[in-house]
Amino acid sequence: MTGTGAPARRVSRRGLLTGGAAAAGGALAGAGALAALRSHGVRPDDAVPVAQVGNAVEPFHGARQSGVTTEPQAHAAFVAFTLRPGTDRAALGRMLRLLSDDAARLTQGRPALADTEPELGLLPARLTVTFGFGPGLYAAAGLDDRRPTSVADLPAFRIDRLQPRWSGGDLLLQICADDPLTVAHAQRVLTKDSRPFATVRWVQQGFRRAAGAEPGRTQRNLFGQLDGTANPKPGVSADTAVWVTDGPDWLRDSTTLVVRRISMNLETWDLLGRADRELAVGRRLDTGAPLTGEAEHDEPDFAALGPDGLTVIPDFSHLTRARVTDDRQKILRRPYNYDGAPTAEGHADSGLVFAAYQADIARQFLPIQRRLAERDLLNEWTTPIGSAVFAVPPGCPEGGWIGQQLLG
Amino acid sequence: MTGTGAPARRVSRRGLLTGGAAAAGGALAGAGALAALRSHGVRPDDAVPVAQVGNAVEPFHGARQSGVTTEPQAHAAFVAFTLRPGTDRAALGRMLRLLSDDAARLTQGRPALADTEPELGLLPARLTVTFGFGPGLYAAAGLDDRRPTSVADLPAFRIDRLQPRWSGGDLLLQICADDPLTVAHAQRVLTKDSRPFATVRWVQQGFRRAAGAEPGRTQRNLFGQLDGTANPKPGVSADTAVWVTDGPDWLRDSTTLVVRRISMNLETWDLLGRADRELAVGRRLDTGAPLTGEAEHDEPDFAALGPDGLTVIPDFSHLTRARVTDDRQKILRRPYNYDGAPTAEGHADSGLVFAAYQADIARQFLPIQRRLAERDLLNEWTTPIGSAVFAVPPGCPEGGWIGQQLLG
Ligand code: HEM
Ligand code: HEM
Repeated sequence: MTGTGAPARRVSRRGLLTGGAAAAGGALAGAGALAALRSHGVRPDDAVPVAQVGNAVEPFHGARQSGVTTEPQAHAAFVAFTLRPGTDRAALGRMLRLLSDDAARLTQGRPALADTEPELGLLPARLTVTFGFGPGLYAAAGLDDRRPTSVADLPAFRIDRLQPRWSGGDLLLQICADDPLTVAHAQRVLTKDSRPFATVRWVQQGFRRAAGAEPGRTQRNLFGQLDGTANPKPGVSADTAVWVTDGPDWLRDSTTLVVRRISMNLETWDLLGRADRELAVGRRLDTGAPLTGEAEHDEPDFAALGPDGLTVIPDFSHLTRARVTDDRQKILRRPYNYDGAPTAEGHADSGLVFAAYQADIARQFLPIQRRLAERDLLNEWTTPIGSAVFAVPPGCPEGGWIGQQLLG
Repeated sequence: MTGTGAPARRVSRRGLLTGGAAAAGGALAGAGALAALRSHGVRPDDAVPVAQVGNAVEPFHGARQSGVTTEPQAHAAFVAFTLRPGTDRAALGRMLRLLSDDAARLTQGRPALADTEPELGLLPARLTVTFGFGPGLYAAAGLDDRRPTSVADLPAFRIDRLQPRWSGGDLLLQICADDPLTVAHAQRVLTKDSRPFATVRWVQQGFRRAAGAEPGRTQRNLFGQLDGTANPKPGVSADTAVWVTDGPDWLRDSTTLVVRRISMNLETWDLLGRADRELAVGRRLDTGAPLTGEAEHDEPDFAALGPDGLTVIPDFSHLTRARVTDDRQKILRRPYNYDGAPTAEGHADSGLVFAAYQADIARQFLPIQRRLAERDLLNEWTTPIGSAVFAVPPGCPEGGWIGQQLLG
């Protein structure tokens, strides 16, 4: 996952740094941008000062929504809504105009129009608000014919133990920022403004490493694994996997999002030896290298045999089963860790808010998920307990609103 | 709250910066320490690079525990335990030896001894683990005579709506770090190692601004208020308020901690105009200045009258009622924001994990809390829903363990 969209991040931070401290919104990339792009690892003398974590901005307006190929921020709230009866196409237009306006302001470090806590709106900390449309939204708008076919409940998998409280949704807001107070405030503003139109169906909050804790490194999940290594690379590779590049204007520059809540059983996982844990995934826990290699980004050798005559990377390892090499079939994983309160006996409530972006769920996500559900050593310790699917419509220009190509 | 313990933070970061990136544990202050101390505001050319957020360390060993006057980290988990029947003085000794060893390692960026996710133990991100002893621990150890008298359930206040699920506890671990994954991992390790001796009673997770989002600024709570302005200043003032300076060795260099979970009703608060909200506290929302002043740290003038003949700062404002000027009567507030999932109707579940440190609960916390419970305009929008009280024993030297002066 790491590195996805890194350029945008470094540009805006660098721009702020050279162009003054106050987040004024708009294009912030300055002359230092190219220099910043060239260096990926952070060296002390090139390092971004922490003073800028709060002021860094991501764009809101543009052909495509932010928060997808954007380098993942440290904190996320996924907020799913159920439309109230009577929220029709016209009402949806009003709602999305309002929420787009809120998002356009808050992401640029300006309070929302009717912000009752305007002081909490001044630090964007790379805030992005990404809108997703569930199947119910198309139905409510009377536009079922415009719904991408695979934006529908996923087929049931035998590994699933889905709970309604983490599943479904007509509208999703994925709110991400490097500061948890910024996320809380944006969640509050957007939830309040959606009240006339929708009720809250579920909220899933998650986290990754803090901004600057491990710059340029793939994040770790609560199993201790490097999680995100084989994501499509930022640029052409991720773009090909993620974006719809043709079709009518409500599809062009759109993508789709699958959100699965997957609990990770730390109790049984921790009983395994390290060797077994590494076999389950096919990668080493320390470096993230494939079992046939030395470094994280070495190509795995699925044919290599061990002294026992078996493949070094087990055929049912997560790596083998999930493997896809064609960018058109890859998914962009953008997961967040969750960690609730443990039980009285001290058993953890941990897992992933597994979020995957891809141009087409049927072509990309489903084949992988089917292979994993059928056979994946990791299934022993992971259980999907929530599932939801959304179309992520194109972005909008300044003065526009998310969804206007579909509903306008 | 801001600035408390700032020296320790800046020193260790600076030390890391000049002395190499890997957290090696031990004293990290370098020659640049004094220079770092002199500047409080962060200027671009003096700024700490974000690359160091993960590696920064706080000491574990010492006469006094860390996590008290330490500049508050961005994330906290307060974990309260109930001792299992049979956990007596000897068992407590074994438990605290084990947990102290875990904390000593993890805070310095080294995995715990039996760490099943050692890779998650490498980034301390200013991790502190602060131990608190509830009344039940003294009883279990047969040492009730050594319990500071005011370490006991607080008297009931008429504003209280306490829930057992957020109240009490025999042992508390306050786990704080600038990285949420670091907190989650430490919580996991410490909870696992406490299992033979105790069950988890409650966990309260909270957050403040991300490291580096607003360096040198007082944090804001979810009402949008600057929260921490009038805390005793780092140094002599905070030391006087917080630490017990004489008595037997299990009391010297100890302190006490009150943890109150206080829900903040954003629904009704947001209905108020700004002027009314500012009157409720006696300070301005934007600058945090007292209503009689211009800047955050101006002295409030409680006698100043407005054109209506009333005091400018209302007599029942939170500021007036909470006011204490003698350091010996002050408390050190070290609160964290919490923000759970809103209801279906979009009503927030927000508030403070209000944590206050003071040498003596009876002399310092109780008089303030009594005045506030009796009359405080803020009571209209805040409700205590949890309450717990702990003695925070002295620190320990290398090779020692927390509680050894009491139980050893
Ligand atoms: C809690 C559940 C899961 C955990 C802990 C997990 C963990 C991992 C790990 C450690 C890797 C190797 C490093 C990397 O490339 O990121 C990986 C790779 C991958 N995972 Fe998962 N995963 C989970 C669920 C899923 C699901 C539900 C899917 C999709 C349906 C998925 C798809 C993939 C893909 C496509 C790869 C890259 C494979 C490659 O081409 O090398 N994972 N996962
Ligand atoms: C949700 C509940 C609370 C909120 C939102 C809140 C908020 C505030 C605010 C905005 C200030 C002014 C700025 C500052 O000095 O930090 C303040 C001051 C203060 N509060 Fe609270 N507070 C709460 C609960 C409490 C409680 C329970 C106590 C103690 C029993 C307390 C004790 C104090 C003290 C001692 C001051 C400083 C007064 C002075 O000397 O200027 N507060 N609080």
